[in-house]
Amino acid sequence: MREIGIGLIGTGFMGRAHALAFHQAKAVFDLPHPLTLAALADADPQRARQCAQSWGFETAHSDWQRLIADPKVNLVAITTPNHLHFPMAMAALAVGKPVYCEKPLAVSLDQADQMRQAAKAAGVVTRVGYNYQHNPIIQLAREIILRGELGSIVSFQGEFSEDFMANPASPWSWRCEAAHAGGALADLGSHLLAMARHLLGDVEAVCAVSQTVHTQRPASAGNREQRTIAVDDHVHALLRFANGACGTVSSSWLKHGYKNHLAFEISGTLGTLAFDQERLNELRLCRAGETGFQRLLAGPDLPGYAAFSPAAGHQLGYNELKTLEVQELLMALAGEAGHGTDFEEAWAVERLAAAIRLAAREQRWVNVDEQ
Amino acid sequence: MREIGIGLIGTGFMGRAHALAFHQAKAVFDLPHPLTLAALADADPQRARQCAQSWGFETAHSDWQRLIADPKVNLVAITTPNHLHFPMAMAALAVGKPVYCEKPLAVSLDQADQMRQAAKAAGVVTRVGYNYQHNPIIQLAREIILRGELGSIVSFQGEFSEDFMANPASPWSWRCEAAHAGGALADLGSHLLAMARHLLGDVEAVCAVSQTVHTQRPASAGNREQRTIAVDDHVHALLRFANGACGTVSSSWLKHGYKNHLAFEISGTLGTLAFDQERLNELRLCRAGETGFQRLLAGPDLPGYAAFSPAAGHQLGYNELKTLEVQELLMALAGEAGHGTDFEEAWAVERLAAAIRLAAREQRWVNVDEQ
Amino acid sequence: MREIGIGLIGTGFMGRAHALAFHQAKAVFDLPHPLTLAALADADPQRARQCAQSWGFETAHSDWQRLIADPKVNLVAITTPNHLHFPMAMAALAVGKPVYCEKPLAVSLDQADQMRQAAKAAGVVTRVGYNYQHNPIIQLAREIILRGELGSIVSFQGEFSEDFMANPASPWSWRCEAAHAGGALADLGSHLLAMARHLLGDVEAVCAVSQTVHTQRPASAGNREQRTIAVDDHVHALLRFANGACGTVSSSWLKHGYKNHLAFEISGTLGTLAFDQERLNELRLCRAGETGFQRLLAGPDLPGYAAFSPAAGHQLGYNELKTLEVQELLMALAGEAGHGTDFEEAWAVERLAAAIRLAAREQRWVNVDEQ
Amino acid sequence: MREIGIGLIGTGFMGRAHALAFHQAKAVFDLPHPLTLAALADADPQRARQCAQSWGFETAHSDWQRLIADPKVNLVAITTPNHLHFPMAMAALAVGKPVYCEKPLAVSLDQADQMRQAAKAAGVVTRVGYNYQHNPIIQLAREIILRGELGSIVSFQGEFSEDFMANPASPWSWRCEAAHAGGALADLGSHLLAMARHLLGDVEAVCAVSQTVHTQRPASAGNREQRTIAVDDHVHALLRFANGACGTVSSSWLKHGYKNHLAFEISGTLGTLAFDQERLNELRLCRAGETGFQRLLAGPDLPGYAAFSPAAGHQLGYNELKTLEVQELLMALAGEAGHGTDFEEAWAVERLAAAIRLAAREQRWVNVDEQ
Repeated sequence: MREIGIGLIGTGFMGRAHALAFHQAKAVFDLPHPLTLAALADADPQRARQCAQSWGFETAHSDWQRLIADPKVNLVAITTPNHLHFPMAMAALAVGKPVYCEKPLAVSLDQADQMRQAAKAAGVVTRVGYNYQHNPIIQLAREIILRGELGSIVSFQGEFSEDFMANPASPWSWRCEAAHAGGALADLGSHLLAMARHLLGDVEAVCAVSQTVHTQRPASAGNREQRTIAVDDHVHALLRFANGACGTVSSSWLKHGYKNHLAFEISGTLGTLAFDQERLNELRLCRAGETGFQRLLAGPDLPGYAAFSPAAGHQLGYNELKTLEVQELLMALAGEAGHGTDFEEAWAVERLAAAIRLAAREQRWVNVDEQ
Repeated sequence: MREIGIGLIGTGFMGRAHALAFHQAKAVFDLPHPLTLAALADADPQRARQCAQSWGFETAHSDWQRLIADPKVNLVAITTPNHLHFPMAMAALAVGKPVYCEKPLAVSLDQADQMRQAAKAAGVVTRVGYNYQHNPIIQLAREIILRGELGSIVSFQGEFSEDFMANPASPWSWRCEAAHAGGALADLGSHLLAMARHLLGDVEAVCAVSQTVHTQRPASAGNREQRTIAVDDHVHALLRFANGACGTVSSSWLKHGYKNHLAFEISGTLGTLAFDQERLNELRLCRAGETGFQRLLAGPDLPGYAAFSPAAGHQLGYNELKTLEVQELLMALAGEAGHGTDFEEAWAVERLAAAIRLAAREQRWVNVDEQ
Repeated sequence: MREIGIGLIGTGFMGRAHALAFHQAKAVFDLPHPLTLAALADADPQRARQCAQSWGFETAHSDWQRLIADPKVNLVAITTPNHLHFPMAMAALAVGKPVYCEKPLAVSLDQADQMRQAAKAAGVVTRVGYNYQHNPIIQLAREIILRGELGSIVSFQGEFSEDFMANPASPWSWRCEAAHAGGALADLGSHLLAMARHLLGDVEAVCAVSQTVHTQRPASAGNREQRTIAVDDHVHALLRFANGACGTVSSSWLKHGYKNHLAFEISGTLGTLAFDQERLNELRLCRAGETGFQRLLAGPDLPGYAAFSPAAGHQLGYNELKTLEVQELLMALAGEAGHGTDFEEAWAVERLAAAIRLAAREQRWVNVDEQ
Repeated sequence: MREIGIGLIGTGFMGRAHALAFHQAKAVFDLPHPLTLAALADADPQRARQCAQSWGFETAHSDWQRLIADPKVNLVAITTPNHLHFPMAMAALAVGKPVYCEKPLAVSLDQADQMRQAAKAAGVVTRVGYNYQHNPIIQLAREIILRGELGSIVSFQGEFSEDFMANPASPWSWRCEAAHAGGALADLGSHLLAMARHLLGDVEAVCAVSQTVHTQRPASAGNREQRTIAVDDHVHALLRFANGACGTVSSSWLKHGYKNHLAFEISGTLGTLAFDQERLNELRLCRAGETGFQRLLAGPDLPGYAAFSPAAGHQLGYNELKTLEVQELLMALAGEAGHGTDFEEAWAVERLAAAIRLAAREQRWVNVDEQ
């Protein structure tokens, strides 16, 4: 592969985030291969053209299948609604093209399973957009754990809460449909589960409770028509990890006061570390023998940070985590993979979420590999 | 009852804390009855005499049964090791004297059950030392919940972690014996469970995991002899409350970085509130429509605070929560009970802890009233 | 001196705080001399009797001069309004009795000067109630500085702000009269100046600005009659210390959001430490080579703490700082003085405040020893 | 002006930051004019070519004068070392081209004065890179103040501290030369002064102290040769604002524990607000009648934020503030100026810093318009 030609499907918020990330990666990293923004696809031809021009893509397509077939495209990036991830990724894999797909991998565990099998068969690089893991301070947390600085891991307590559905007048959307991977657990909690696996590895068994607090929501903003909601607003679960650690996870999209509260605390025999994504550039750490927690602020000594700023404390933002994700993907395409989430791993995240749903439904412990 | 004659059994840290609290209550509150420090008992006659003198008690006994029989004593306060709570409280109740017992109520659920039955039969006031609930800012939290300011309660996430057993060289003590109500759940977690019940009422069902991280500890500090430890170092549980709320509790005595981290977050349809006992005088609150959490600092507008300071921000300490507990007890003796924990309630806390232990042992959901 | 007989003048909030502190000191410390609560004085004979009884004093006086003359009294504690400190302390010193006086020492620098001269002449122990300095975590801060752990001290940035006069409808009181040592600088700022001296020693020169924001206030709550206010609401100053450090201090009693915000940050060539009295039991510390601040939570390893609790994180409150102040005073009476504020030191605090007022009035740098 | 052709001088960290910002502005904003990256200049021809290619510029120049003369360039962006700002900006203004210059405007107040006069004479848009002001949460703070929500402003307390010169072995660099606008006040403090003016307007008078803590530093890292340092390491000042507010500012580059601590607290008769750039997306606010501070987290309701993320809590980073600065500049070129810092305002910032230096040197109050 001499040159990476990006083919991006989707022009919504995540589509633009991808475009920005490719541009920024080109400017800030010394990439292994040249990068071109080869093609952009949107079902609306005019929008495809406009966005292609303003985001710097060479070609615009209104048919995603033509984008996949485009010979200039040798990496397919998918940012469309969740239910389209499956057909698009399968089509790309069928012609042997690497795929970079937004999370969640699919809208059912069965689809996710087919996708990881197809990826394995195709033998190409795949990545799924769990960009929070590419935060340099999260990489530091992972290294602290892997180097054994926390000793044997004892517990993981995690939460991902926001408040955007707290108001019962917040309307129905595809996020409220299980068939589109809706609900607090699938929408937010999956980031937390992916993070737990990224940091501590496999989960063996789970138990859970799930609540739907507002069972009716307006069909659209201000609409009198109500739709019945079946997905979860709030989930709590117990986890038993393969490494012997135990813990809890909670996910809610109606918890007042939180906007992006992906937080966790990991304790081991030699220390405790804590993170809250509402303070994206900070980690709190207490090692055995120290009196209290110390605040670490991200800086150029962390992997990836220096590409954005030469000085500590000049904070990275959400979009730059996407740029770091893109960099790891491009390195993987050059045979130097980092810790990015491939289809196999993304399926494992989906399977874990499915186990939690099953455990909540049947009110019993579920072994994650039951499914 | 014209005058309250306190008979205090035990001269350890909690014995002194009681003595201080009675003195301070006398000085700062307008009590319904005069209070005298009638008698103090310790098995060591010399220590009993010395402490009685320095703490201002009129009489010293080396035999607790004589203290209970002492006609000047009409309130028996028990601060002895946990396994003595049962015989002492039962003896006091048998002669119809009110009892103020340190937590835990007993070292087995069966004992606790007998004690609450005896209390009911005796028809006297009983109280158990869950002094953290008497924190004025906790009373504010309770009122916020009861007045419906958080709406319907959705979730409770609580933790009580300390680090005093984090070092594997921290030696065995009675706290490491199940027969003395040892283990992180019984020692620390019971405060959290009592708090959860104080704020949200009955728990219907639980599920849990429990870990013993260090299965051997020195028999005493620096001793080469090791003792095998069977009690829990760390417990996580899921809770389903009778009011429909769900949540998690965690308790650990080996989590580096924490000294007195009894913390919880309660969310409802109209708001979220959060507390951490390491910042004893603060509450964080976010109401629907507000952007973020607001910090409330305890002040004289809260019940009980003004007795200690006329100005907000002049913080109350741990010992003053004990004074507030004593005040509620003395009001209860005068027929004006507040929200103190009586034997019935303390038994319910023990039963909840027992249900969590059972759920962890059998790895299944347990209905709290199974036991 | 075989036995310390306390004679306490004043039964307001500070009077009661003294009574509690003497009681608690007796119970928690191993004191060098026995302590008796010998006599209590209040101009109102009935109040004197009632308080004496409820606080455990042996005798009640309605004439403070008789209290000073009482042969059972060999320590005179003064908690009356500020303008009475002078005559009472001078009378006690005149008969050679040690004095424990609430802050401020006096209502004018001239009075303060006479009092320190009289104390020196009498050769007795004197103490002034700057109890915030007796906070164990402040003692830790002082030791960190004295041991050189911060290196050469570079800067002090301090503030003492509250909000109790923020509302322009907050009425006039003696606190609004310069002749009673009123104003934000004298009332609050003097604590901060005393703290700066306690931690860093002499200040050589100052420059300042002073503001009276609300120049009229109701004569009493809800009163239509307005009184003109001349004292400062808010003061900022620059300081040059004798040790070469420089810094700023600010004091306000109308800063919304603060209740007891006596905060400072001290930086040196080897580290920085920070404190905020709204979190009384915490210190933040960053040493050279460390990435960020570490939170230290008070515990029994700090001087004085263990008297109140055997475990870290069981927080001390405002009243317990008073008990620690009393302990140091009682040790000083036994010839083992700690770092308590005597009349000489309290005069130096008053002189520093006077220099700041002069610098603000004349808008120039003032050498502190100009006065 | 039909199309904006950017001519960028300098390829260091700030050069790349500009390039990224122009790209991102193009992608995320609906700009009034099309934008082209016309030319890039660096004295090293090869570096100029390489950077032009990787950052997407059409032409590369090794002579900045040719860039200014380039007819495709109609906006000159200057990111070279400080002493070159003057000749470059003067040359661009001489041919009537708008200038976007990094801070500080110049290395002497005299140069700055000439530059603002030239800008006025040329009648073109000028901007100086005080990008911190373009933080959406800072714009919110400014609006809160301007709408009168804090009432009359009483005080400003500000600080900008970092620790990158804390180690005495941190070597000499141009930042240590007054002739290159070095020292903590010029390098860091000028951001704080610009912020104070942005939020509260003109400062009338100042008083200050200045310290050089380490008067010798290695000529380069690890070098035994020492250079004498004359610029300030730490400055404290008092300010009197034209609007009647008073306050303090401090700036240090050797304060352990801080990485980007541009923090301030502004209080008024109706409220207090606080900001710390180490938590770039947060503001703390307490309004009259509220008990404590509330945390506001940036979200799409704030000006500019939505361009980067549709959801609150998905934090902006340092580089995105630069993009926001570029957007305001481009709007200003289209006649719709926002609150960007032009040469006139940047000169006022320099004059204020010069007044502080003079006040420190002469140890007296200085009227800012003395100079």
